[in-house]
Amino acid sequence: MRFSLEATMEFSKPIDFLKLDFPKLIARINSELFRKGVPQEQEGSRIVHWNIIGTKLILTIEGSTYLRPHDALLRLRKFLAQKFGREYNIGVRSIFVKNYEIRFKPKRMPKEKVEVKVPWVKEIVQKDKELLVKLQDLDSTALEDRYVERILKRIEEKINQKLYGGKAEHWELIWKSRKRKVVWDKDPTPEMERRGWIKRFNVGVWLHMPITTKIMRTFQKIAEREILRPLKFEEVMLPKTVPLEVWLQTGHVPGSSNSFFYVCRPEKWDPEFWEDFADWVKVTRKIPYDLLTEKLAEPNAGICFAQCPPLYWYFKKKLIPEKELPLKFWDASGVSYRWEGGGLHGIERDCEFHRIEIVWIGTKEQVIDIKEKLLERFKRIFDKILELEWRMARVTPWYMAQAGQLGLEEEKEIGTIDFEAWLPWRGPREKSEWLEFQNLTVAGTKFSDAWNFKTEKGKEIWTGCSGIGLERWLAVFLAQKGLEPKKWPKKFVKILGKLPKEIKLI
Amino acid sequence: MRFSLEATMEFSKPIDFLKLDFPKLIARINSELFRKGVPQEQEGSRIVHWNIIGTKLILTIEGSTYLRPHDALLRLRKFLAQKFGREYNIGVRSIFVKNYEIRFKPKRMPKEKVEVKVPWVKEIVQKDKELLVKLQDLDSTALEDRYVERILKRIEEKINQKLYGGKAEHWELIWKSRKRKVVWDKDPTPEMERRGWIKRFNVGVWLHMPITTKIMRTFQKIAEREILRPLKFEEVMLPKTVPLEVWLQTGHVPGSSNSFFYVCRPEKWDPEFWEDFADWVKVTRKIPYDLLTEKLAEPNAGICFAQCPPLYWYFKKKLIPEKELPLKFWDASGVSYRWEGGGLHGIERDCEFHRIEIVWIGTKEQVIDIKEKLLERFKRIFDKILELEWRMARVTPWYMAQAGQLGLEEEKEIGTIDFEAWLPWRGPREKSEWLEFQNLTVAGTKFSDAWNFKTEKGKEIWTGCSGIGLERWLAVFLAQKGLEPKKWPKKFVKILGKLPKEIKLI
Repeated sequence: MRFSLEATMEFSKPIDFLKLDFPKLIARINSELFRKGVPQEQEGSRIVHWNIIGTKLILTIEGSTYLRPHDALLRLRKFLAQKFGREYNIGVRSIFVKNYEIRFKPKRMPKEKVEVKVPWVKEIVQKDKELLVKLQDLDSTALEDRYVERILKRIEEKINQKLYGGKAEHWELIWKSRKRKVVWDKDPTPEMERRGWIKRFNVGVWLHMPITTKIMRTFQKIAEREILRPLKFEEVMLPKTVPLEVWLQTGHVPGSSNSFFYVCRPEKWDPEFWEDFADWVKVTRKIPYDLLTEKLAEPNAGICFAQCPPLYWYFKKKLIPEKELPLKFWDASGVSYRWEGGGLHGIERDCEFHRIEIVWIGTKEQVIDIKEKLLERFKRIFDKILELEWRMARVTPWYMAQAGQLGLEEEKEIGTIDFEAWLPWRGPREKSEWLEFQNLTVAGTKFSDAWNFKTEKGKEIWTGCSGIGLERWLAVFLAQKGLEPKKWPKKFVKILGKLPKEIKLI
Repeated sequence: MRFSLEATMEFSKPIDFLKLDFPKLIARINSELFRKGVPQEQEGSRIVHWNIIGTKLILTIEGSTYLRPHDALLRLRKFLAQKFGREYNIGVRSIFVKNYEIRFKPKRMPKEKVEVKVPWVKEIVQKDKELLVKLQDLDSTALEDRYVERILKRIEEKINQKLYGGKAEHWELIWKSRKRKVVWDKDPTPEMERRGWIKRFNVGVWLHMPITTKIMRTFQKIAEREILRPLKFEEVMLPKTVPLEVWLQTGHVPGSSNSFFYVCRPEKWDPEFWEDFADWVKVTRKIPYDLLTEKLAEPNAGICFAQCPPLYWYFKKKLIPEKELPLKFWDASGVSYRWEGGGLHGIERDCEFHRIEIVWIGTKEQVIDIKEKLLERFKRIFDKILELEWRMARVTPWYMAQAGQLGLEEEKEIGTIDFEAWLPWRGPREKSEWLEFQNLTVAGTKFSDAWNFKTEKGKEIWTGCSGIGLERWLAVFLAQKGLEPKKWPKKFVKILGKLPKEIKLI
């Protein structure tokens, strides 16, 4: 990697009077200040050109990864601020990098143009087997907050993303159930609409009347009876809107930014502030959306998406005594929302859904042990109670896929298992796309790192989570078993009891 | 009421050539067309001045409530379009009211200036004992969609609002419980925070760990056991974001517009559309809110507020067979949000809350009968199980207060009952403000009118609803009974069982 930087350092007073001393000073900087920490035989950074105009010192610095010129510049600012402050009572006002060129051979050469769309990137050029990254207009915040490093990292990320394709996921079958006899091969959604069991309220948002509600609540009862109570998970009620700053910690921002439902509160509560809006609506019976937008604060939160992040936030900067571990929780206190880009048609892919989120926190061994116990119990439910045709696959962890960090986990213990089931109405079991109806993730220390919590003795904490999507269970169950309770598995019907009656409307 | 309107009617071709015929035509219009439907002895509308310039007919029309000049103008347009169309093949291009003055004595004279902040209102002037309303720039949409009538109605509404004060509610005590011995007089919120039972996630948003979750779920269990199951209410799952157009039907828009949490989905799902946002976040680790706002669709929905409206929407334009009635539902499938303007401190007033919404639908008699049964059962819960000190008051129905239509309901059957309880930490029972912890409303035909549903035989349908706010029950219960289960009512503890243990963090 070779770097070439053009910068201006501005002082609180003119420094022309120092012009004659500068050649010696620059030589000392190059040979001493810029050599610190650089291996003897390696190149660091060097000032190759300089000029003084009034209060400004104009510099060109070239360098290598052993001392990157922007780090050299920060080091120089500190040095000159001390030296000139002491000797002449002159301070450093600002530093500014007008141009910064970085050349390097990436691990893999991109096949198409790579762009990083931020104001500090002027251009990224492919030349022979090198990339030339032209940066511009970096101020001290940009330099100190490591924008340069992150731009380079982002470029590598994008090259990888493009090589492997945006959606390519690792997928590895790890288990499959026996085949089940098909009861019907119809799509349950239109039939349920016809019967008034459900009604489409909005894109991907369904109103569930008593029949489907009872079926889903029976799934919940099964989960409580077979999993949550015997394994001693405790119910919690997690907030159902999440500040974007929290998702910045988990990588959901920006990873899933295109899938959130964003939330804005009113700019002011004061009814007078809203009076023109109220007048407009009362007079026209129409909603003036432009005026409304002006009355709202910026969108700084989203509706529940991954469900578990607020729980990790609870432990922020805490030490958890070893004897409290493992901690086991579940939450089913509200809906989650996920924008899928429209074009949804049935209950198998919803924008609004009801999920039981299961979270466990402990040492590595505890977390893996609980995962195994959960897998056993899920198997029992799907095989013995719901009698589904389903399978499990190891996939790229959702948080890695969403955060754009593709790549295979080295450790087998960390990762996500998808539970998938056959939807006969989509076609033959061998050819059609199966539905992911549940997943289970061991996230390692991802979340304890993000919120900085450890055991009392300072040991690392692992977490795991698993989401039971009630609508997904419903979509799978009805697709495989039909809408007639007399054809449903006996064990399930015993727990279900009688279905509420249909309401006949005209 | 006296009206004076200046309008222009534009034709598809010049009508100068008709100038000579016009005096006779105008006389006929005044004496025939504008007299239709006006009582013999009353004044209707009259064209008092006219002029023709090219394609334009310029008019001044004066009139009374028996035929308002803007209605006369619409009538005239129809008449001339037919007549000129037939005779000269000339059509009416447009009508436009440049100025429109309306003078009247309001029922009550306002004490301060009244404003209706829409572009069609130029000024509202108080003169002697009259109001002079100056309107402007009304096009055919404004005239046909009755903006004029609604502006006048809005003025009356505002006069009433100002006279009675924005928040003044009718409040009438209808029942109170016996006094209860005070267990403590502390505010439970800070103590629960100290113990880690709850943690403040955002303004008015609390994370509930296992202890308070179990207490609230026990309240829910009590509601299910004592009310919902014995009275045969069926659980449903109602959507938890509501399009603003639905709230326009119920009057929540604009009535409660200052209290919603608004929801926007992404303008596009396409990850490329989001790439510059992702780049910015990855490089700066900060969220560029301006850029984010550009990427979102307009706010066209809100998070669940009153909870029941989507259920009425389900019955839109349906006839319900008499034998299906009464219908009884409850929903507890997600959280509700209400912006209170900040400054919240404890769990007794939240932005996010969990509510069991109970809704019943039937004939007037059925709805009132169910209300009585519910009141009885609520009484039993608060008196015998939770042993609260509480009272009931008849108040202005929430939907009327919110929609700005203050005033006493004439019928006693329609209206809202607030359940209020003493919070000892707020001060003596006689002097402190009690907390509304629940309400019950009989809404008459408000919602069946809004969505136009009736019985199969065409009879009117009434609805009732009642919201059990779990956080409110919690706030009241803990304020009166303290945080130590050994001091709690025996019947409650029996249903509760053992509390989960506190998690000790360091």
